Amino acid sequence: MAITVVGSVAFDSIETPAGKRERCLGGAATYFALAASYFTNVRVIAVVGEDFGRRQESVFQARGIDMRGIEHTAGKSFFWEGSYLGNLNEAKTLITDLNVFAAFEPKIPEAYRDSEFLFLANIDPVLQRRVRDEMPGVKLVAGDTMNYWINDHKPALLEVLKGLDILLINDTETRTLAGNSNLVQAARAVMAMGPSSLVVKHGEYGATLFHTGEASRTFKAPALPLEEVVDPTGAGDSFAGGFFGYLASQPELTPAVYRKAMFYGSVMGSFACERFGTERTQNLTREEIDQRFNLFRELTHLD
Amino acid sequence: MAITVVGSVAFDSIETPAGKRERCLGGAATYFALAASYFTNVRVIAVVGEDFGRRQESVFQARGIDMRGIEHTAGKSFFWEGSYLGNLNEAKTLITDLNVFAAFEPKIPEAYRDSEFLFLANIDPVLQRRVRDEMPGVKLVAGDTMNYWINDHKPALLEVLKGLDILLINDTETRTLAGNSNLVQAARAVMAMGPSSLVVKHGEYGATLFHTGEASRTFKAPALPLEEVVDPTGAGDSFAGGFFGYLASQPELTPAVYRKAMFYGSVMGSFACERFGTERTQNLTREEIDQRFNLFRELTHLD
Repeated sequence: MAITVVGSVAFDSIETPAGKRERCLGGAATYFALAASYFTNVRVIAVVGEDFGRRQESVFQARGIDMRGIEHTAGKSFFWEGSYLGNLNEAKTLITDLNVFAAFEPKIPEAYRDSEFLFLANIDPVLQRRVRDEMPGVKLVAGDTMNYWINDHKPALLEVLKGLDILLINDTETRTLAGNSNLVQAARAVMAMGPSSLVVKHGEYGATLFHTGEASRTFKAPALPLEEVVDPTGAGDSFAGGFFGYLASQPELTPAVYRKAMFYGSVMGSFACERFGTERTQNLTREEIDQRFNLFRELTHLD
Repeated sequence: MAITVVGSVAFDSIETPAGKRERCLGGAATYFALAASYFTNVRVIAVVGEDFGRRQESVFQARGIDMRGIEHTAGKSFFWEGSYLGNLNEAKTLITDLNVFAAFEPKIPEAYRDSEFLFLANIDPVLQRRVRDEMPGVKLVAGDTMNYWINDHKPALLEVLKGLDILLINDTETRTLAGNSNLVQAARAVMAMGPSSLVVKHGEYGATLFHTGEASRTFKAPALPLEEVVDPTGAGDSFAGGFFGYLASQPELTPAVYRKAMFYGSVMGSFACERFGTERTQNLTREEIDQRFNLFRELTHLD
């Protein structure tokens, strides 16, 4: 079933201990869409400027991603520059130029309206909520956010959370949102704000899935121990793409399907780190993905 | 098969967000021995002062732990005071009084010499090596250390590593020992120093087992998401006790046995955090342990 994702499509300049890249294709919606495209049909809502041309389009096209919701306007695309020289687990942001993204008004193409899955990538919660409200028929809604919205736009964010089935955020965001340093207690507090499932991403330590309700259970997916983390940019969005893409590909959303989705999330997150930008994620095969899935099974299973 | 463990038996005063305890029974050898005692026979080599009396002895006796190697001398036992008020993942040491431990000269009782498993808890590497050399017939030797020895006593520590089969340390210790911030590369460098297996403990994120050689594989055990961490003191030593105790209880050390040992390590580490000091670890049943083992399986396994 098709996923609609709303979020940023951007250019990133990235420096890591492995090297430097200028103006790679980036943005949360880009990473999410590429990762999810190996599992199901993906439709993107975003805005880009005149610097987004054929070369960037071809990356989406090659993965069969629907771009009718990517609006082209005068000006430059969202640009981010960051460095991981000090800490591979957290980028130091050097430049954020919102450019055309500053006036982003998401428009949902008619052709997207039958999407059964909706992913609200990390953007202004006012926009997240608008898109969510305009797609009342979706079967499952997941979303991401970040500390900036949690700290400075909490009322708007709380409105978004009410409309989410699944929230995917990291440890710090979970603790900050709940105002509680114990992760289990914090997860319960966050789920009381709306989402019935919460995926807490731990970076190099994997991710934990929490559910409300008795029938379900907490589940942990590891991260792959990597010889070299070339560029962690987009790993979290790629996790979300693998996770939500796999869910959208399944006829029924059982607890077992959620667990496999956690593994596919980790798999796509691990690939994202192996090359700069989207280089690795845009050039995978489903066979490589499933081979790595099996590696994750070996890494965690007793038998 | 019997394990001999050499290390500290001590008194700890501990403050955590859950409360405060004065002069609990503590020490690495104590936690290790209690945790391992649910799996196999354990023999302790340590030194205590006149403050170590019947009440403390009875904790070891109740678990059937051999105390003939615990030397009683004039003076006070090793005393440590620490606080977790600022950070539950890392104690702030307020007081360390070595007391009788300052002149510790490990003596191995004759009755211990047929032990097939040896655990060198975190003490001066000069003493670790002496004990190891005096027990040449052991089948498997594991050990622990800490940043202090890595930074300031490296030559002596490197001599110990040559005689170890398994080293159990945390992330920071692994990276510091190897001088490499990438965990996979650091693990390989540490194993090149001697141990053919390395267990890297990640605190609330579980632990990773690395092996040298082609036949074996990396394995990850999670930590249990706990509603309340009452007191993390001794969690790492309890992990080591569960891990090594299970290994010592098995007729053959296959890769599958190592994986189960990682789970038993995490199980014993999780219990240690649930009460102050050794309160929880000294009062378990094997049934509770195996129930929690099954919980760890559910937490990580797809099916």
